[in-house]
Amino acid sequence: MIGATLVASAAAPRIVEAAPLPIPESEQKPGRPIPPSEYGMPSKFEASVLRRRTDVFVNRQNLSDWSMTPLQSQLGIVTPNGLFFERHHAGVADIDPKTHRLVIHGMVKQPLVYTMDDLMRYPSVSRFHFLECSGNTLADWLKVASTTVQQTHGLLSGAQWTGIPASWLVNEAGLQPGAKWVLFEGADGATHTRSIPLEKVLDDVMIVYGQNGEMLRPEQGYPLRVLIPGWEGNVSVKWLRRIKVSDQPWYFRSETARYTDPMPGGKWRIFSFEMECKSVITQPSGGMKLPGAGMYEIQGFAWSGRGRITVVDVSVDGGKNWQEATVEQPAMDKMLTRFRYRWNWNGNPTMIASRAMDSTGYVQPTVDDITKVRAITGFVQHHNGIFPWSVAANGEVKNAIA
Amino acid sequence: MIGATLVASAAAPRIVEAAPLPIPESEQKPGRPIPPSEYGMPSKFEASVLRRRTDVFVNRQNLSDWSMTPLQSQLGIVTPNGLFFERHHAGVADIDPKTHRLVIHGMVKQPLVYTMDDLMRYPSVSRFHFLECSGNTLADWLKVASTTVQQTHGLLSGAQWTGIPASWLVNEAGLQPGAKWVLFEGADGATHTRSIPLEKVLDDVMIVYGQNGEMLRPEQGYPLRVLIPGWEGNVSVKWLRRIKVSDQPWYFRSETARYTDPMPGGKWRIFSFEMECKSVITQPSGGMKLPGAGMYEIQGFAWSGRGRITVVDVSVDGGKNWQEATVEQPAMDKMLTRFRYRWNWNGNPTMIASRAMDSTGYVQPTVDDITKVRAITGFVQHHNGIFPWSVAANGEVKNAIA
Repeated sequence: MIGATLVASAAAPRIVEAAPLPIPESEQKPGRPIPPSEYGMPSKFEASVLRRRTDVFVNRQNLSDWSMTPLQSQLGIVTPNGLFFERHHAGVADIDPKTHRLVIHGMVKQPLVYTMDDLMRYPSVSRFHFLECSGNTLADWLKVASTTVQQTHGLLSGAQWTGIPASWLVNEAGLQPGAKWVLFEGADGATHTRSIPLEKVLDDVMIVYGQNGEMLRPEQGYPLRVLIPGWEGNVSVKWLRRIKVSDQPWYFRSETARYTDPMPGGKWRIFSFEMECKSVITQPSGGMKLPGAGMYEIQGFAWSGRGRITVVDVSVDGGKNWQEATVEQPAMDKMLTRFRYRWNWNGNPTMIASRAMDSTGYVQPTVDDITKVRAITGFVQHHNGIFPWSVAANGEVKNAIA
Repeated sequence: MIGATLVASAAAPRIVEAAPLPIPESEQKPGRPIPPSEYGMPSKFEASVLRRRTDVFVNRQNLSDWSMTPLQSQLGIVTPNGLFFERHHAGVADIDPKTHRLVIHGMVKQPLVYTMDDLMRYPSVSRFHFLECSGNTLADWLKVASTTVQQTHGLLSGAQWTGIPASWLVNEAGLQPGAKWVLFEGADGATHTRSIPLEKVLDDVMIVYGQNGEMLRPEQGYPLRVLIPGWEGNVSVKWLRRIKVSDQPWYFRSETARYTDPMPGGKWRIFSFEMECKSVITQPSGGMKLPGAGMYEIQGFAWSGRGRITVVDVSVDGGKNWQEATVEQPAMDKMLTRFRYRWNWNGNPTMIASRAMDSTGYVQPTVDDITKVRAITGFVQHHNGIFPWSVAANGEVKNAIA
């Protein structure tokens, strides 16, 4: 009986002798009438729950920017569209769907061009998938003192996406022999482009116009984007206008000078698309303060670009011991998954962390593990190390990496 | 190969000889910079996708009102919070969570009072469930000419809810012998109250503060509501401030004069909580116009207050023949489920409809079936009849009931 356990905690409910309580003001007067039509908004009392640009790095290129999801406030596994993180390379494009076109050409039997009306008429699919920027948790490799989980891991969100399997369009145009790579080009000011192996495109890539039940938001690529499940966010090209098929990759700046990983011996890894299994505790997390010893539910997210989350372990003693957390269902393929672990804090200083395993058996590594196989220099991408928070005797929770 | 089929349709992509296309304006200039923080909004080109008050009934009591979800525009199974339908009895309450209290009393061993901070500290659960107003599709019993699926079925939405199992709070207060019913009271101007059998409360009822990843919106009961999975929407009392336990129901106005069902012989059915298995085609639906003969994907929602959706059949010949549609996964317990069916329309006038079956084996009835066991008079609730749309030779889709 969970209740009996919690009565002993600092946040126990008050025992009352005379109930019910005084009638609140809201019950003594009519509320707000509703307008003929509206797009509803959050309560004014939640005005601080916002997507935020980083305040860790001062960004000198305002048009190559990003904003981060307040993971410390997120409930469940679906990130509200208004809080979904976004990353762009030349500002947010504002495109009229009536004028938008998608072309597919290159090593195809027949080049084709689609209007949005064409695409919206196709049969569609809806699938839940996370998106994570390859640079997520980048600050912590650099020992920059990011404070909150919004700053450390906020380039991460989850949604249900609606669109068309990319394979349908590729097959409609028809592949020429020898086709191996596919270019996706965005209609933004940066003309963001990426080369993707044809095998992945034919597997589970989606051409997406819907997110969480409605049309994409402008900052998510309205009216059309690519969604490449489990891969680094930037390959899911937004404001999609062009698909080209080839027998080799293009080696764009976005796949040579950027979005590559320094390795030992001065080499650089390219086309490192997959986001490996990772997890983070969001509650309690940096910037919070526990009111005192007692029962707490540790919560967080786990995700993997390779499949489903099967196990999440939690340590409440700085990594010496690990206990299995509850993985909340549905734990879907390449989707945010929530874990929960009940912790009776004794009030002593400690460190807490989570460690996830996915359906391939891959286990999230420690930062030390990663340091052995990667070179840690510059803007290191694909950081999926175990992330600890320190808890002080006064209850303050802080980033224990930086 | 779906593509090849669709090339033959009216909405086929254009074959192009010279690709790529001219560079669009959005690619020739920087986009919008992002502010330091924001709560993102839909594209200006989607400004017509709104939650709307009915324009079928002219509501003379503005403070007992409702607004309906644009199901014709909804993608996937998660309804965006800004478009989630809402129903209230005295306007929308605006409550400061710092002052809000929840009391539990009556036939309990120890009355208790909770602050929001108390409740937010408890372990929590997140679950996907639909909500449907008992009056949904009410207009169509009355042969009122509602036009769109927003008007016919828009008192229906789906979300992931986060909160505490009600059983934890009831057990924490401790039940006295003989306890059988539970009162939930809202802190709104109508003091909306309902009596719920204890057995259901201990089964799957949730005390909810989160919806689709964020705190409840004011019109959904911020900061606290009940969520009674699978039951008519009004029992999921919003702005929850009081739980009382008793050995009998209270017979509130909301369970005698309202939210009851006329039956044959002048009797009225009370406490008809469960929303039975139902479905509706949302695409194409009333007010749309098909551009011509050819391939279309028929889409819609199916849901059941008794369990999961297992089968959905679609008829494209006015109910003479039925074919099985694809039920998109995940098809979750007491949650909206999307079905899809590919239809090659020959251009002749016809009627289309869907029919759902749930995991108990219950099959959605026809309107005629319902008429045999219910009295159709006044504001008839719990209408779950098969709903047909007519398709004219010119492609116009209309409500075929009214």
